[in-house]
Amino acid sequence: MSEKTAITPAGHTTPPARFSHGVRKGSILQVAGQVGFGPAVPGQAPAPVGPGLREQTLQTLANVQAVLEEGGSSWEDVVMIRVYLTDTAHFPEFNALFDEFFAGLKGAPAARTTVYVGLPAGLLVEIDALAVLD
Amino acid sequence: MSEKTAITPAGHTTPPARFSHGVRKGSILQVAGQVGFGPAVPGQAPAPVGPGLREQTLQTLANVQAVLEEGGSSWEDVVMIRVYLTDTAHFPEFNALFDEFFAGLKGAPAARTTVYVGLPAGLLVEIDALAVLD
Amino acid sequence: MSEKTAITPAGHTTPPARFSHGVRKGSILQVAGQVGFGPAVPGQAPAPVGPGLREQTLQTLANVQAVLEEGGSSWEDVVMIRVYLTDTAHFPEFNALFDEFFAGLKGAPAARTTVYVGLPAGLLVEIDALAVLD
Repeated sequence: MSEKTAITPAGHTTPPARFSHGVRKGSILQVAGQVGFGPAVPGQAPAPVGPGLREQTLQTLANVQAVLEEGGSSWEDVVMIRVYLTDTAHFPEFNALFDEFFAGLKGAPAARTTVYVGLPAGLLVEIDALAVLD
Repeated sequence: MSEKTAITPAGHTTPPARFSHGVRKGSILQVAGQVGFGPAVPGQAPAPVGPGLREQTLQTLANVQAVLEEGGSSWEDVVMIRVYLTDTAHFPEFNALFDEFFAGLKGAPAARTTVYVGLPAGLLVEIDALAVLD
Repeated sequence: MSEKTAITPAGHTTPPARFSHGVRKGSILQVAGQVGFGPAVPGQAPAPVGPGLREQTLQTLANVQAVLEEGGSSWEDVVMIRVYLTDTAHFPEFNALFDEFFAGLKGAPAARTTVYVGLPAGLLVEIDALAVLD
């Protein structure tokens, strides 16, 4: 059996329950749902970097990337990105930000599913990702 | 490292951002969220095949299947189907359509999760799928 | 090609459509979305064990665990837990229940994504899980 390893980027806020920001087992690397929290500040509750979609989206993608990199991976290994938005009106701007972020991707873009859900107050976007490393 | 390959069925509409309709890497084939869009028509925006649950569900499942087949796979390899509906009242009819569609499945049915979310105006259902090919 | 096997715990209610409570194929074990239904009772429709978050959450996690164990696995193999709640106000209590349930976990905790969706009337929580076994 392959070992299961937790992935915890140094600057990430502590998860609010007993789960990991990322996990590697065998060839699978799963990134937990990330939101637009800035780097952890001791003694302060996690908070999004800004109220707007742009700041939150770019921070959320950076947070996913930090987990991938801490796990020895990158966006090039990602096969699926799950996007949770809170407002269908955000779709065009989100897509523009997504394309801007992935402008430098070399390989095949990941698959993606985007749905509209509720999130805790102040959060506009949540993203998780599945990577295959073998 | 295994190569990551994008899967793009010929008739599919172009994704609205830098993602793929499907991706194969190693033994994993991930189908992106599909909706009830009919075949792409040059110069026209993607549009669902009909306003009703029946047309959209069958087209959505056909669109998932097209990605599986373009990737050298089939429903027989699918381990998970994620179903996003917009109205809990659609559950019984959706299940009947699902059973009708999968009447010919030979092997074990995939696992499934069904939740109710928001989708862009006019769309009643979105479906993605995970297949294991090795 | 590895065989795809359906996983059906003895006490589980029959799925309302042609899907499996769990599927194993290759090294992947996917648990379908579980809810707080108690053990199947012949001639009766599936029903949640109670109206409250506590009973439903613990039953839902037990139902996921039954699929894992029927498939020869356990929480130690799980890389991702997807949590669907219906009310953002439930987040703190859910997290406390989650930590209570996983107090005995030996290895790295799974990744997790939590979003807020609609569920059929009476259901407060749905959970699915992805395990990697080899």
